[in-house]
Amino acid sequence: MEYKFSKGIAELKPSLIREILKSTAGTDTVPLSAGNPAPDAFPIDDVKKIINSVFENDPVLALQYGVTEGYAPLIGELEKLCKERYGVFGENDAVMVTSGAQQIMSLLSHAMLNYGDTVICEEPSFIGSLNCFRAFGANLVGVPVEADGMNIASLEQALINNPDAKFIYTIPNFQNPSGVTMSLEKRKAVYELAKKYGVLVLEDNPYGETRVAGEDVPAIKTFDEEGVVVYAGSFSKIVAPGIRVGFVCANKELIAKMTVVKQTQDVHTPLSSQLIVYKWLTECDFEAHILKIKDIYRRKLNLLCDCIDKELSEFVEYIRPEGGLFVWCKLADHIDMLDYCKKAAAAGAAVVPGVAFLCDESAKTQYIRLNFSTPSDEKIVRGIKILADVARTYSK
Amino acid sequence: MEYKFSKGIAELKPSLIREILKSTAGTDTVPLSAGNPAPDAFPIDDVKKIINSVFENDPVLALQYGVTEGYAPLIGELEKLCKERYGVFGENDAVMVTSGAQQIMSLLSHAMLNYGDTVICEEPSFIGSLNCFRAFGANLVGVPVEADGMNIASLEQALINNPDAKFIYTIPNFQNPSGVTMSLEKRKAVYELAKKYGVLVLEDNPYGETRVAGEDVPAIKTFDEEGVVVYAGSFSKIVAPGIRVGFVCANKELIAKMTVVKQTQDVHTPLSSQLIVYKWLTECDFEAHILKIKDIYRRKLNLLCDCIDKELSEFVEYIRPEGGLFVWCKLADHIDMLDYCKKAAAAGAAVVPGVAFLCDESAKTQYIRLNFSTPSDEKIVRGIKILADVARTYSK
Repeated sequence: MEYKFSKGIAELKPSLIREILKSTAGTDTVPLSAGNPAPDAFPIDDVKKIINSVFENDPVLALQYGVTEGYAPLIGELEKLCKERYGVFGENDAVMVTSGAQQIMSLLSHAMLNYGDTVICEEPSFIGSLNCFRAFGANLVGVPVEADGMNIASLEQALINNPDAKFIYTIPNFQNPSGVTMSLEKRKAVYELAKKYGVLVLEDNPYGETRVAGEDVPAIKTFDEEGVVVYAGSFSKIVAPGIRVGFVCANKELIAKMTVVKQTQDVHTPLSSQLIVYKWLTECDFEAHILKIKDIYRRKLNLLCDCIDKELSEFVEYIRPEGGLFVWCKLADHIDMLDYCKKAAAAGAAVVPGVAFLCDESAKTQYIRLNFSTPSDEKIVRGIKILADVARTYSK
Repeated sequence: MEYKFSKGIAELKPSLIREILKSTAGTDTVPLSAGNPAPDAFPIDDVKKIINSVFENDPVLALQYGVTEGYAPLIGELEKLCKERYGVFGENDAVMVTSGAQQIMSLLSHAMLNYGDTVICEEPSFIGSLNCFRAFGANLVGVPVEADGMNIASLEQALINNPDAKFIYTIPNFQNPSGVTMSLEKRKAVYELAKKYGVLVLEDNPYGETRVAGEDVPAIKTFDEEGVVVYAGSFSKIVAPGIRVGFVCANKELIAKMTVVKQTQDVHTPLSSQLIVYKWLTECDFEAHILKIKDIYRRKLNLLCDCIDKELSEFVEYIRPEGGLFVWCKLADHIDMLDYCKKAAAAGAAVVPGVAFLCDESAKTQYIRLNFSTPSDEKIVRGIKILADVARTYSK
């Protein structure tokens, strides 16, 4: 039969990154394209002990249905985390457990967006979120990201031009893909503009705990007194992504609607995953683990950047990020970016073409995204050599 | 700030069942209202062994990101299951792993429904699915369920009246809440009508393996040669619901679109949950476990029905189901149904008012739904006594 798909879905393409991930999985290609956390950053021994004790002591809890909002003791711990560590929990706020932070994008989109409504995004931005907004038929309006975050004048212009905007989507720390961290001043400006124009801010912070240089900057949600900011947290880079646990902190009324949507999506996040995070938060050493993660990522980030500086500096420009998993490189003008990405993959080093991160995927960009958390140190060195060899094949 | 929610979500209420579940959790109330599988039906020892071996032998596999479609070896096993056990896997079909069968409702709705499109539902039907369709702004059109399934003349009339219908939603085995199993003739008629009018059939089969009497009837999907039927399976009643693993078998083109939607919802189902099911399917004794489950549910179903016959027969009518988790009881006309449910809960026995399962929740019905899988045997006996005591307080 001929299928009549919904308008939002009919034109949506599968994520370029996921497709590349699939095509490179299991091969000898250097996966500079992926976004996987480093496996040696997983607290494997802790998780092993936890999972054994969960199934030993209370298997029925782990196997039976739970409530949609999440396992109550975990919600309590997350509230504490949001209050004490992040300062994002306001007096009218609530916390909900989600199936990864990706689900927060979907829950908020579903709760807020009618077909055709505008979402204002950083440009470039994370393809997984952009595709989620697209799936609800959103009109994506991009605001350029500068070295200290969104261009604020462009943001205000976008808000003026799009009175149907429902929210501003931002990754303020070590943005994916640009690596940029938004300055305190710009964070305040984003919050004030959101209030002024009556739109929400969706503050996505998956990388906040991966800072390897510089000083932490307060979350936009820390300024929030009006229920304007939806704060999305994730355990994918703190514990592990395969367990799919995120959390959202926002005004109670928003959380109530997102809970209704979550009921319709997956009823609740698997209890075994929730129990891993609950017990990890209450029984393991958060600070020590974060220091360990930072050591791993500092070493790998520096290795990648040092290799780029040594091998690739005549072909790319970049700003060294202070955390996150990615380095955003601008290719020299004489190199055809898409052609380069294909040749690099064929030569054994996969990178993501920057166009994947644009609101308009047919726009032009010279950027490529490199990941340093997935490949081994040896592969990082090899991958950059391959990228340099391929770059040298283009004549100026 | 004042939130402007999307049209589909603005009017949606939280699931009545979930709310009742929350309000009765942890109290001494007899939970005839819930839909939890019996905990003694969980293969706890198997799952314990599996989870220990997974985290012992390949913890990184369980903790790292996976692909959206699901863990490839699990997909292979599910294809085999769909071919050999259920006969639902057609030559142009594919299988995807989902976060519970609930996610299939959401993925298909998102892939197919524009705001205002029609979904044709059995009436009564499962509130979790109805709310999912409502969340996408669907116009729900109910077709009465008779002792052998949907009224076929009403179904055709609904298809004629609603040319914007995108799919027919049915639970053909031990329907929730009615307990009804659709006859082979009606299954064929539903398939033929779907083909004739160019709509999909969403065949939801969470209870198929719980048959405790009578003979299995082939799935609607077994007739499908045109990619008309989307078959939704679940491990919630076979292994356990807390792990949230379902699977969908449908035409490849549909699976591809549903995969795109799943990417935007939760990226993938947790690997630990997928690995539990994979290893359970490949290493444990499926048939022996199903026989054990059937013994448990046969005993509990018969106990509930025997108690009703003994204590409650002058107040309710019902048809004894051949499987599933529910008995659908019609209260005598002199009893005010909603008032009765409230009084019963106050007296210590929670049941779900039938109105929760109607397309139009303001319509009138004399039905209540009783569950026998959640309460202990002792509580079933006590619960029915309470229901009888409350029934006796109404004068004819």
